[in-house]
Amino acid sequence: MAIGQKPLKKILEINEPKLKTSITKIEPNKIITQGYCQEELIENINFSEMVYLLLQGKMPNKKEAKMLNHILISFCDHGVTPPSTQSSRLIASSGSPMNVALAGGLLSFGKQHAGALESSMELFQNVINDLSDFNEKYLFDNLAKDIVDDYLNKGIKIPGFGHRYHSKDPRGSKIVKLAIEEDFIGPHLRLALAIEKELFKRKKIHLNMDGVNGAVLSDMKFPSNLGFGIFMIGRIPGLIAHINEEVTEEEGFRKFCDIEDICYYGEENKSLKG
Amino acid sequence: MAIGQKPLKKILEINEPKLKTSITKIEPNKIITQGYCQEELIENINFSEMVYLLLQGKMPNKKEAKMLNHILISFCDHGVTPPSTQSSRLIASSGSPMNVALAGGLLSFGKQHAGALESSMELFQNVINDLSDFNEKYLFDNLAKDIVDDYLNKGIKIPGFGHRYHSKDPRGSKIVKLAIEEDFIGPHLRLALAIEKELFKRKKIHLNMDGVNGAVLSDMKFPSNLGFGIFMIGRIPGLIAHINEEVTEEEGFRKFCDIEDICYYGEENKSLKG
Amino acid sequence: MAIGQKPLKKILEINEPKLKTSITKIEPNKIITQGYCQEELIENINFSEMVYLLLQGKMPNKKEAKMLNHILISFCDHGVTPPSTQSSRLIASSGSPMNVALAGGLLSFGKQHAGALESSMELFQNVINDLSDFNEKYLFDNLAKDIVDDYLNKGIKIPGFGHRYHSKDPRGSKIVKLAIEEDFIGPHLRLALAIEKELFKRKKIHLNMDGVNGAVLSDMKFPSNLGFGIFMIGRIPGLIAHINEEVTEEEGFRKFCDIEDICYYGEENKSLKG
Amino acid sequence: MAIGQKPLKKILEINEPKLKTSITKIEPNKIITQGYCQEELIENINFSEMVYLLLQGKMPNKKEAKMLNHILISFCDHGVTPPSTQSSRLIASSGSPMNVALAGGLLSFGKQHAGALESSMELFQNVINDLSDFNEKYLFDNLAKDIVDDYLNKGIKIPGFGHRYHSKDPRGSKIVKLAIEEDFIGPHLRLALAIEKELFKRKKIHLNMDGVNGAVLSDMKFPSNLGFGIFMIGRIPGLIAHINEEVTEEEGFRKFCDIEDICYYGEENKSLKG
Repeated sequence: MAIGQKPLKKILEINEPKLKTSITKIEPNKIITQGYCQEELIENINFSEMVYLLLQGKMPNKKEAKMLNHILISFCDHGVTPPSTQSSRLIASSGSPMNVALAGGLLSFGKQHAGALESSMELFQNVINDLSDFNEKYLFDNLAKDIVDDYLNKGIKIPGFGHRYHSKDPRGSKIVKLAIEEDFIGPHLRLALAIEKELFKRKKIHLNMDGVNGAVLSDMKFPSNLGFGIFMIGRIPGLIAHINEEVTEEEGFRKFCDIEDICYYGEENKSLKG
Repeated sequence: MAIGQKPLKKILEINEPKLKTSITKIEPNKIITQGYCQEELIENINFSEMVYLLLQGKMPNKKEAKMLNHILISFCDHGVTPPSTQSSRLIASSGSPMNVALAGGLLSFGKQHAGALESSMELFQNVINDLSDFNEKYLFDNLAKDIVDDYLNKGIKIPGFGHRYHSKDPRGSKIVKLAIEEDFIGPHLRLALAIEKELFKRKKIHLNMDGVNGAVLSDMKFPSNLGFGIFMIGRIPGLIAHINEEVTEEEGFRKFCDIEDICYYGEENKSLKG
Repeated sequence: MAIGQKPLKKILEINEPKLKTSITKIEPNKIITQGYCQEELIENINFSEMVYLLLQGKMPNKKEAKMLNHILISFCDHGVTPPSTQSSRLIASSGSPMNVALAGGLLSFGKQHAGALESSMELFQNVINDLSDFNEKYLFDNLAKDIVDDYLNKGIKIPGFGHRYHSKDPRGSKIVKLAIEEDFIGPHLRLALAIEKELFKRKKIHLNMDGVNGAVLSDMKFPSNLGFGIFMIGRIPGLIAHINEEVTEEEGFRKFCDIEDICYYGEENKSLKG
Repeated sequence: MAIGQKPLKKILEINEPKLKTSITKIEPNKIITQGYCQEELIENINFSEMVYLLLQGKMPNKKEAKMLNHILISFCDHGVTPPSTQSSRLIASSGSPMNVALAGGLLSFGKQHAGALESSMELFQNVINDLSDFNEKYLFDNLAKDIVDDYLNKGIKIPGFGHRYHSKDPRGSKIVKLAIEEDFIGPHLRLALAIEKELFKRKKIHLNMDGVNGAVLSDMKFPSNLGFGIFMIGRIPGLIAHINEEVTEEEGFRKFCDIEDICYYGEENKSLKG
């Protein structure tokens, strides 16, 4: 086998590393993540602190760690109703290994599913970023009125509000209650609550889990992209539980629509002969 | 940003290329695949010849190209009945792009689905590889009897035989007919047909598409792993047609099981307080 | 296990089929695709005709089938240079099965990779759809000038033009030559060629394969989303050849960046105690 | 569009629910997981308790929750060295969204990568399940000798022992230390430590993180399949941090092997003309 010849210049250029990272340093018998020895992290921090540290590059304070833990738990599972859970189980049923079934479930998080969290974070962050002073209550009420007017006029849903199964999403309400008890109320959550007040008055629609969590995560300074990441971190244990249930409790190779559930409405009697 | 320092020895070592390939050479304005200029291939060969060339490293003869084309067409679509097609449509429905929905469908090809083709190729190839002389007809009949005995005694299905919807798979029968017309009958197909004769006598079970195509691909010297690859090449246009139909003809974010189709059978009234 | 009770109304409602399709009808021993018996298709048509039939719902004429075959071949492989091929090989190297490695490669077709084909189709189709009369040559020249002005002023690349390795993509040039020989030149290709003329005059930049194929596929009335699908149909045999080469020719579990190629630039000496 | 007609018998049959689950019950404004109201879980439990509850169907005791938290943290990240992390970054670099890049990383967990945890759990559980009485220390020493003999004779690696970068994996050592401090030492960990003693004596090879965690998870009665699931739960925050770093800190569409790193070793001058 011939080996490519590279000029000396090229050889020296590629002295430059291909990959750089500031997340984790690997040395023989030593692993440092975000500046801390992993041994110290393993012994001393809990999972929500680890998530915060990995994604923000620094340790959270106690309140932030606690709120993030509440949020992660709230994402854990919504039964077999979401398409992502159905995809994971369908793939597991065909005999694919657990990582493959899990990956298939993640692929179902398209714009129409799990998009509400990102969109609500973008909405709240865009509005708040444009403000110079957000301490006065009447301000949030006025902003909320404008936003609700705008969406209702356009006839589109406000992301983070309303739910197909729950008129009042119990997870969202609980996170609001905990944020109040912990005094963890920043401008994004205040805006979300003001929108809810206005929208409920006009349309009887409440904040849902995505809207509340999107607001609290925004108050923690997570960008919307990482909000989506945190949702997946929270949901994955539920997906794994479903994959495991599918594999251990159900017959293999089942389909969620049998042939009786399928209707063909195309043509039937064409022929290549004319 | 600090840049890693590597000793000179390391620098010279990495002169060695990271990736080697014998499939395609890229030069400025020149692309050579399996030894041929792509411009020549684009102008002169058809798709089944390209598939053969890429996977076997040489051009097929006319008969091989024709049979491979028949096989690719036979894999094209089986409606919305397969779990892979249902997965692709489910993922497309959630707003994921076409490549993502297609990838999700591929993840459904687990051991229980699309495994029959690989397994039938392994079965036929193992038996034939053990033979020194396979010209005599009685030999195949005797081999077939032993194989059928063996599987029936163990109570397991012979891969490549029987179908959940078709007592006689019309695609398999057509490929057999074409192989006979083309005089493209090697030892693997002869073995498959001998097994079918025996199995039909005892159990009224026919060869299916996977079994016939597995035998013909084995006669073309494709290993079982590439048989699975050829199945995917053939099926992907069908999956793309379904993804497109889902996106253009159906409402977004539908689930294949609604909440009325779901039954919960776990506990309900536990409390952390004891 | 308790089974959910549904009211009679619900039972009758779900008489409605869950899934509908106009692509393929499955009956015992009979499979009909786009109106044709699959047995007739298996015997009589080639792969590019099958692709056209599945995606357009009708048979192509001879010229269309021929041009589509050329296009599929032109997509087949670009060596190990694309990130999608590198992803597939990396995943195959870790011991995942072929369908999983293939799916991983498809996931690499993001906006930055394989997006040029879709974007060029959108560009050409948007311009042509806005025209009522496109027969006059000077029209295309004027349109092309406006488009080139617009993109150059904004400082962004025109999708379908230029290539990182090829100053003149040999695949694109060959497809143009074949379209001329076949007299298969519709308004989208005329527009693409007019843009190329203008862009080459000003910037020495040529049409690439994506641009040419996007124009020809638009002339065949494929929407941009299906153009992307056709690209994947064409590229998948190449990806499978690479996965097979990785598995048969290389050691398992290799990484494309070794530890010497990695540079850490984060902090190192933080402690939770401080 | 014609709608399929089903006989009354069929209609009544499909009264049976398509999907059953014992994990989560969804009612309007009420979500119950493993028997507990999600509101109670959100307020009161931490993430490792949630993972245990979802996967085992019951709450862990305090020690189990603490050990599981340590294990989840130990899985969090190993820099850019693993192929899975490289796959995720490569896919993110091509412009695919976060869920897609994450899914691609998971597809890299093949038999050669992340397989050691499952294999070590299978090894430990098979040995321990065969024992009727495992209280006597000499027993573990004898078992360990037999196992090490067996693997060394066959010339294969014992899963869970040795590491390509770390002669003594600091994460594994820390988990062992914490298990001793917490008095959380069951038969699987005792077996693992006995094998380590024997293997170190003969080959200077230590337990690694997979081996230690596989033993502790086995002592918690997790089957090997769920051990793999727990590894993914622990690793996913790290993968998301890397995807985020790739997207925010690096240029798009980079490849990990440039054209200079690629060597072609196939033929070059074939022609179809013969």
